Amino acid sequence: MEILTSKGVTAVPGFKASGIASGIKKSKKDMSVIYSSVPAVSAATFTSNVVKAAPVLFDMENIKNETAQAIIVNSGNANACTGEQGMANAKAMAEKTASCLGINAKNVLVASTGIIGIQLPMDTVLAGIEAACEAISEEGGSDAAQSIMTTDSFQKEIAVSVSVGGKKVTIGAMAKGSGMIHPNMGTMLSFIATDVSISKQMLSKALKDSVDDSYNMISVDGDTSTNDTAFVLANGLAGNETISSESSDYYEFKKALDYVNTELAKMIASDGEGATKLLETSIINAPSLETARLCARSVISSNLVKAAFFGNNTNWGRIMCSIGYSGADFNPDIVDIYFKNESGEIKIAENGMEVGFSEDDAQKILQGQYVNITVDLKAGEYSATAWGCDLSYDYVKVNAMYKS
Amino acid sequence: MEILTSKGVTAVPGFKASGIASGIKKSKKDMSVIYSSVPAVSAATFTSNVVKAAPVLFDMENIKNETAQAIIVNSGNANACTGEQGMANAKAMAEKTASCLGINAKNVLVASTGIIGIQLPMDTVLAGIEAACEAISEEGGSDAAQSIMTTDSFQKEIAVSVSVGGKKVTIGAMAKGSGMIHPNMGTMLSFIATDVSISKQMLSKALKDSVDDSYNMISVDGDTSTNDTAFVLANGLAGNETISSESSDYYEFKKALDYVNTELAKMIASDGEGATKLLETSIINAPSLETARLCARSVISSNLVKAAFFGNNTNWGRIMCSIGYSGADFNPDIVDIYFKNESGEIKIAENGMEVGFSEDDAQKILQGQYVNITVDLKAGEYSATAWGCDLSYDYVKVNAMYKS
Repeated sequence: MEILTSKGVTAVPGFKASGIASGIKKSKKDMSVIYSSVPAVSAATFTSNVVKAAPVLFDMENIKNETAQAIIVNSGNANACTGEQGMANAKAMAEKTASCLGINAKNVLVASTGIIGIQLPMDTVLAGIEAACEAISEEGGSDAAQSIMTTDSFQKEIAVSVSVGGKKVTIGAMAKGSGMIHPNMGTMLSFIATDVSISKQMLSKALKDSVDDSYNMISVDGDTSTNDTAFVLANGLAGNETISSESSDYYEFKKALDYVNTELAKMIASDGEGATKLLETSIINAPSLETARLCARSVISSNLVKAAFFGNNTNWGRIMCSIGYSGADFNPDIVDIYFKNESGEIKIAENGMEVGFSEDDAQKILQGQYVNITVDLKAGEYSATAWGCDLSYDYVKVNAMYKS
Repeated sequence: MEILTSKGVTAVPGFKASGIASGIKKSKKDMSVIYSSVPAVSAATFTSNVVKAAPVLFDMENIKNETAQAIIVNSGNANACTGEQGMANAKAMAEKTASCLGINAKNVLVASTGIIGIQLPMDTVLAGIEAACEAISEEGGSDAAQSIMTTDSFQKEIAVSVSVGGKKVTIGAMAKGSGMIHPNMGTMLSFIATDVSISKQMLSKALKDSVDDSYNMISVDGDTSTNDTAFVLANGLAGNETISSESSDYYEFKKALDYVNTELAKMIASDGEGATKLLETSIINAPSLETARLCARSVISSNLVKAAFFGNNTNWGRIMCSIGYSGADFNPDIVDIYFKNESGEIKIAENGMEVGFSEDDAQKILQGQYVNITVDLKAGEYSATAWGCDLSYDYVKVNAMYKS
């Protein structure tokens, strides 16, 4: 697998994209199009929130079609809690995009992110779609990644290539995160383009499994959004023999897809609202995958753990506490806990109790921008990793002051 | 029911208490005793956290005895994640208390609160127990309430009297909360004294049911502690006919017990670490009690909702979002949302969508120290109320900086 220097969705043959400022936001980019020159096999995962945004409800129908050819995305307004008008607006966005690109409206997917409960300014939106469709290019990936940002502090893009059945397959993707990030089943917004040839069934399986180990293992604030969506479009232009079973080709592709999704998930976690560091929790030697995942997610979601790391505070009891209320069953009296990163590694607890450690060594690790917390349950062979960030004054500030 | 001006556990006939500075904390009170002149029927609820503190494990055995006569409590150290030494120390605390008070060690319950993972300084603790036992008096309730505080900003006490079977029955109680507050089954620390005559079975039922509607419906930070404990001691000195079934006497007593626990729960929520206001969420017209409780707790636990209220921000979409991921099933398209308190009432959403409201009217309500959020699911007859607080810079500060 090769990590490409040309990042994002337009690193993939056959894909064009754009990102423009339509006026939904005061001045920043807020409208983007991703377009495949040929209809692409499509798959998606969506939020498990009972309150689903209009574009999510729209897409849940449209994704049933074999292929998709374009995704239209706006930021600045989530088109959630907007009733029938919101549904009509999501549909109108797809139709306008189809008309501008000369494709079938059934092949358009829609995504929105931003404030909940306000109707989209449709005159602005429709004019924006026209401009965004006109602007698509093979270099437009970066503009697209920028235009989906809300409180994100940096754009999140990646591209890799991998050999599948003797053919070079490229995967390029972009995502946005920042707040209301605690994905369950679907995720924030993530758009993955690839030229692999694959059946819809296998693409759906690959996406779902990959999402469970990546986006579904991050948390910024425990709030599962109304708009979480991950799309993958596979246009087949790589010319590999179509993947239609769990063959070795499938696993080659899946490995690259996992890498792309995990890297984007980590970018989202490290760019959580107000974050000063990326926290990674590895649960090892768990009796089941479910136990490992429950514990990993619980540590990363604990306000007390997150605040402790913001203060470079070695309060490991909060980690024990958070796995204790995770819903998982385990023996607390045999648990070991380690902190590690590029500055070193220390064992901080053994058999559920504190062990002697050097506060200086701990501080060297805690002051890094990335800290791994490894929890050894010593009770089996399963493991899981989750990602999150610390809880800082700025998280509170961002969410107290702005209606995003 | 009468609310007494003489507050706390020593408002109840036959109860003495004390609170002293033993030296576990640098200078503040940290050790208290509650003592009944006669053995009292006892009941308790404990944390559901898999990681249970040593005193919780000790009490889970000791509470099986018919009666208890004293509770020994220290703050400043939770005696959690302390292994066999911690268990021996909890037992030693009970034995020392029994010896000082001249009672059976089986009749002593133990509670601890404070930092996790550090062994108790037992010389200090045992000397403190001796001093605390010597200091007990009929006026000691307030000192006791003060000595169990950790990051609490005010002491939490209440007492009421109620007529049960023609006799005046008194209930006096004290509690502490502040951080790591998201009780499940048990709760932070709450100590309830009463002179009612009641069977152990009915007292246990009354406590469990009451806890489910009070402490189990509050959240400060979503973190369920390792030490949550609620104790009730009923010494029978009121002389009422012993309550041994769900009689009208039982319900008279239960009503007063509910009042006491709910008021203490609200005090704990309003004094959550860094809190600037008390948030109350009422879910009404739910299809089941479980749905109502899930939704109420989810709103109160959402970091995004909490941060919005800190900023007096009318971002009601976050409330919709939080009930959407609560795990409850409901129709989002018919939900109404209201904000209210002593400054007025506004409907902010109707049928899942924003309605026109005056920002000035909203600000009058939001700037209060108490705000009720009512969510009408319009789908049944059940309701539930939960309490919490806003998320402020000071929550982060308290938990980033201190090892409490």
